[in-house]
Amino acid sequence: MARLILLRHGQSAWNLENRFTGWTDVDLSPAGEAEALAAARLIRDEGLDFSVCHTSMLTRAIRTLHLVQQELDRLWTPVRKHWRLNERHYGALQGLDKRETAARHGEDQVFVWRRSYDVPPPVIAPDDPKHPVHDPRYADVPPDVLPCGESLEATVARVLPYWYDAIAPDLMAGRDVLVAAHGNSLRALVMHLDGLDREDVSRLDIPTGLPRLYELDAALRPVSYRYLGDPAEAEERARAVAAQGRLEKN
Amino acid sequence: MARLILLRHGQSAWNLENRFTGWTDVDLSPAGEAEALAAARLIRDEGLDFSVCHTSMLTRAIRTLHLVQQELDRLWTPVRKHWRLNERHYGALQGLDKRETAARHGEDQVFVWRRSYDVPPPVIAPDDPKHPVHDPRYADVPPDVLPCGESLEATVARVLPYWYDAIAPDLMAGRDVLVAAHGNSLRALVMHLDGLDREDVSRLDIPTGLPRLYELDAALRPVSYRYLGDPAEAEERARAVAAQGRLEKN
Repeated sequence: MARLILLRHGQSAWNLENRFTGWTDVDLSPAGEAEALAAARLIRDEGLDFSVCHTSMLTRAIRTLHLVQQELDRLWTPVRKHWRLNERHYGALQGLDKRETAARHGEDQVFVWRRSYDVPPPVIAPDDPKHPVHDPRYADVPPDVLPCGESLEATVARVLPYWYDAIAPDLMAGRDVLVAAHGNSLRALVMHLDGLDREDVSRLDIPTGLPRLYELDAALRPVSYRYLGDPAEAEERARAVAAQGRLEKN
Repeated sequence: MARLILLRHGQSAWNLENRFTGWTDVDLSPAGEAEALAAARLIRDEGLDFSVCHTSMLTRAIRTLHLVQQELDRLWTPVRKHWRLNERHYGALQGLDKRETAARHGEDQVFVWRRSYDVPPPVIAPDDPKHPVHDPRYADVPPDVLPCGESLEATVARVLPYWYDAIAPDLMAGRDVLVAAHGNSLRALVMHLDGLDREDVSRLDIPTGLPRLYELDAALRPVSYRYLGDPAEAEERARAVAAQGRLEKN
């Protein structure tokens, strides 16, 4: 039975500053590094393992992965990095302070941008220096596929080809897989794996730094999933993430 | 013109303990971490760059690479890890104290094992738990190709296929390449690139933590090579490595 571990990176510098991040390449904070190491210990304590890793092109996810690999003496496992696992692109909101944005556009508009399934944020233009076409890390990606502001629906649409073409083949070859990524690229994977609809996924909150383990059958249908560690703590952390979302609404 | 940077990892825990290391997976010491960061600054100070990286399956080389990538904000560059870039396999000498080994086998024998081109060290048997067939990181490698004690000649023979099949195609596609590896796997590459014979290569000492830059023509023949940074310091460090080798002989 194939095993898949999903891990959302922990606190970044911009989480601390309460700014929209998206594809902006901010690093983990020291607390985020500690979350990665704690996740590694949960994986080790359950006797779990992985033989191949997938992550995004963003430093905070890559460093989370490297910290887990190092803590588990598995730096030698292959790592594939791909833009399709990046965080949702937050368009023109990237870099803005969340509170100021709410003051300017209204709480309700910001809530729609943050939690609706199919409403994209304001996009950035291709001539904006912050557009991904100007970032050398995407030099090999055809410009017309690079996002400039995504709804969750658009994020799901660009994550799924990577699931089918890169992650799923590893699992079907019998490899245990670790994916270190972001809140919304992981929500896209979970939506697919758990068969959630757009209403379900808008209520889905994935805690940071808490490995989510799937056991999958030969057709890669989930036989079971759970967060590693103490179930009560996992539930508590999921509630905390959800509550944070609601607080930010109000 | 394609550019290739070769980087030998810095001090490891077993360098400090003066033990034969080979394929034993020891980590960098804090001094070795500092060497990696200094190498990154040399690369940045010369305005150099890389778009793809190759390294071994051993932690000290992988961490050297990650430290360079992180310092240069290039953690997103793809990394390929392969056993063919591992350090020379030191057979039954791995883990032994160099001084004790010299006391047991004689200085001259140890010098032959260390510096001859074609004399392998004593090998380890396949049923020895330290043989690489028992290491999960080589689970995908056919057992009959895994070394159990290599001469430099044998190291060259297993490094070159990786040069031709993995590194060279990246360079021919116009990518600037960084290779973070080990004293002897890098001597193998330099022997090939510089057209050294077995006498030349036995006198070749590659300083740790000092990037060696090649500019290569379309057929991947070196147009130039040099160590980055102050040439006088590079020469000094090469002399120091060579002198260390001679001291250990005497």
